[in-house]
Amino acid sequence: MKKRLFSYLLIILLFFHPFFDAVSQIAEGSMPAPTNIRADQCPCILPDLSVVFTVNAPKADNVQIDLVKMYEMKKDEKGIWTVTTDPLDPGFHYYSLVINGVRVSDPASESFYGTGRMSSAIDIPEPGVDFYTIRDVPHGDIRHKHYFSNITGTWRSINIYTPPGYDNSGNEQYPVLYIQHGGGEDERGWAVQGKTAIILDNLIAEGKAKPMLVVIPNGNVSRPGMAAGGYNDEAMAVFREELFENVIPFIENNYRVKTGADNRAISGLSMGGGQAFYTGLRNTDMFAYVGVFSTGLFGGIGRPGGGESSFDAESVIPGLLTNPESFNKKLRVFYISVGEQDPRIEPTRKLVQTFRDNGLKVEFSSFPGGHEWQVWRKSLHDFAQQLFK
Amino acid sequence: MKKRLFSYLLIILLFFHPFFDAVSQIAEGSMPAPTNIRADQCPCILPDLSVVFTVNAPKADNVQIDLVKMYEMKKDEKGIWTVTTDPLDPGFHYYSLVINGVRVSDPASESFYGTGRMSSAIDIPEPGVDFYTIRDVPHGDIRHKHYFSNITGTWRSINIYTPPGYDNSGNEQYPVLYIQHGGGEDERGWAVQGKTAIILDNLIAEGKAKPMLVVIPNGNVSRPGMAAGGYNDEAMAVFREELFENVIPFIENNYRVKTGADNRAISGLSMGGGQAFYTGLRNTDMFAYVGVFSTGLFGGIGRPGGGESSFDAESVIPGLLTNPESFNKKLRVFYISVGEQDPRIEPTRKLVQTFRDNGLKVEFSSFPGGHEWQVWRKSLHDFAQQLFK
Repeated sequence: MKKRLFSYLLIILLFFHPFFDAVSQIAEGSMPAPTNIRADQCPCILPDLSVVFTVNAPKADNVQIDLVKMYEMKKDEKGIWTVTTDPLDPGFHYYSLVINGVRVSDPASESFYGTGRMSSAIDIPEPGVDFYTIRDVPHGDIRHKHYFSNITGTWRSINIYTPPGYDNSGNEQYPVLYIQHGGGEDERGWAVQGKTAIILDNLIAEGKAKPMLVVIPNGNVSRPGMAAGGYNDEAMAVFREELFENVIPFIENNYRVKTGADNRAISGLSMGGGQAFYTGLRNTDMFAYVGVFSTGLFGGIGRPGGGESSFDAESVIPGLLTNPESFNKKLRVFYISVGEQDPRIEPTRKLVQTFRDNGLKVEFSSFPGGHEWQVWRKSLHDFAQQLFK
Repeated sequence: MKKRLFSYLLIILLFFHPFFDAVSQIAEGSMPAPTNIRADQCPCILPDLSVVFTVNAPKADNVQIDLVKMYEMKKDEKGIWTVTTDPLDPGFHYYSLVINGVRVSDPASESFYGTGRMSSAIDIPEPGVDFYTIRDVPHGDIRHKHYFSNITGTWRSINIYTPPGYDNSGNEQYPVLYIQHGGGEDERGWAVQGKTAIILDNLIAEGKAKPMLVVIPNGNVSRPGMAAGGYNDEAMAVFREELFENVIPFIENNYRVKTGADNRAISGLSMGGGQAFYTGLRNTDMFAYVGVFSTGLFGGIGRPGGGESSFDAESVIPGLLTNPESFNKKLRVFYISVGEQDPRIEPTRKLVQTFRDNGLKVEFSSFPGGHEWQVWRKSLHDFAQQLFK
């Protein structure tokens, strides 16, 4: 009984001690990152966008911050480890704490499903950029639902953005953007990291985007026993089946949406960009708008087993280069984007040039940044303005 | 440039390596926990409800699992640490991995906002209990919204359960249950850990609960500079202000809900149970239904600075013991619940007896379990069936 009471006391301490193991220290001239857990003031961002991280770990031998670049932390006499990073790019960065070689999430930050686990992340505000900041405009919802999939044999989780006024617009019907996350992410990606609701609310309030639904499914689809995700034909086929047999019927049966290719868009980032490319261009009778953000499909780093020269668009999408007119006629917008510091940029640029040389119409945008959410937020912001007009 | 390429290669490895640092091993006769990250098979639950945890940490000196009780893990020659726990209670348990003394989340499990940070948790299925399992019945939504608070001066996040058919029920109006999370949690608690949508969907399908909205706000309310949460009068006052000035008007202006005390219920768990007690009983003109789950307000472990004998109900709610008839007349259900292994049970039982001895009507339920979500899921399941009838 004493042991039990002691255990409960421990839990109480856990519940009420506001700072836990992460020690909050305000570095001069800094601001807490917006991704911090409420009570914690570090990670904190310095005016030059370098970041101070602190960890209370007196008994650790080695503590690092993994922000793709590894930063070695230094311990003070109280056991507090600290490091100040180089200036970081604005935007959303997954990162890990590495304690004696074990990669874990930082208890001082929020966690997000990415890199195949719940990962900590830091969101560095971009000076002068507020298209993904909540404003006092009419707001839509993110609706969380479950539907049963006859492909996976499971109930699956899905997020759906409905635009402002959806509840009070009587019989009005809306077009739909289907949007896919990247590898190691799921249906939370565009809803949380991507800030889809805020981006669309702001665009709709400014009159820059048509009111639309944005459907955010889990793109990791596999039959029992099959590995989920990836760029191979089997993975693309099962993704398409799930979308066509389960997701789209679920949306069209349960929401007031317009049907027909002119009222459907498909897009995605990285692995999801590959899914949008395959599924959109192979089914132009279903989608008149296709958006491909930062995909590794076109070559460059990120395509497992693929190199820069391994992508043959014509073999994947017959007619794309030899009969571009049929695509130009059916597709109202074919959009490609990529980050300017993403190694995918060169193969992507080359392919866009090839498309254009062969007479295929394609919109191309690049944004400062690597293979990261800031580029994808900007891609959505850009692509959404071109839809359903 | 080479360094940059190497960094990108690292990120690719992170995105595509399915198992990361957590090594998956299937213990014989075990099942993966439902809270596991998709690819991982441990933590795994043995038939006696003991759990096998594994961590790949060759360079760590000491690794523990903190499930309130601390379990020391043992390292094999490959650097894999393993432990098998005692049989665990069914239900949802927050837990931590402790690496060389640093308490972090386990990358092998989902994380949930609880204990004041993103904490890993394991959900042990309870044999024969399926009221919180998704069934093939009509499903409602969890809708995620933001509203602006003039109390905190910030946009605040809120989750709202709308019942099945809400979108297609014309002008029908619904009653509302306002429900609060516990200390160290937020508006995600009832939506995710609590499985509110599934519990209500199932109850409504069985005809055991009336279709209702369930509003899940963030109960950590503070004016700028003031500490959030807790049981003191200032904390309770600012919680009430936020609810009355912002949350309830936001709901009543934006959703098809019935107004008046008979169509409003308030409840909560632990700290939120205290908030429901204060706010509900002090405002019986607003709420005819009050549900108090596992609160530390009544004494016992969990009330900061309070002991078993320190709770004086009459001074907190004048008339509660001396004029019980006025409460019996206004309250259609006054409900209290607590876990049978929660140290709060004795003071709670005593207070319920005092209420009854003084002629105050109160429903009381206890459930097997400690100060944990399984008790609160059962409390919601129990309380929701008594509402708006």
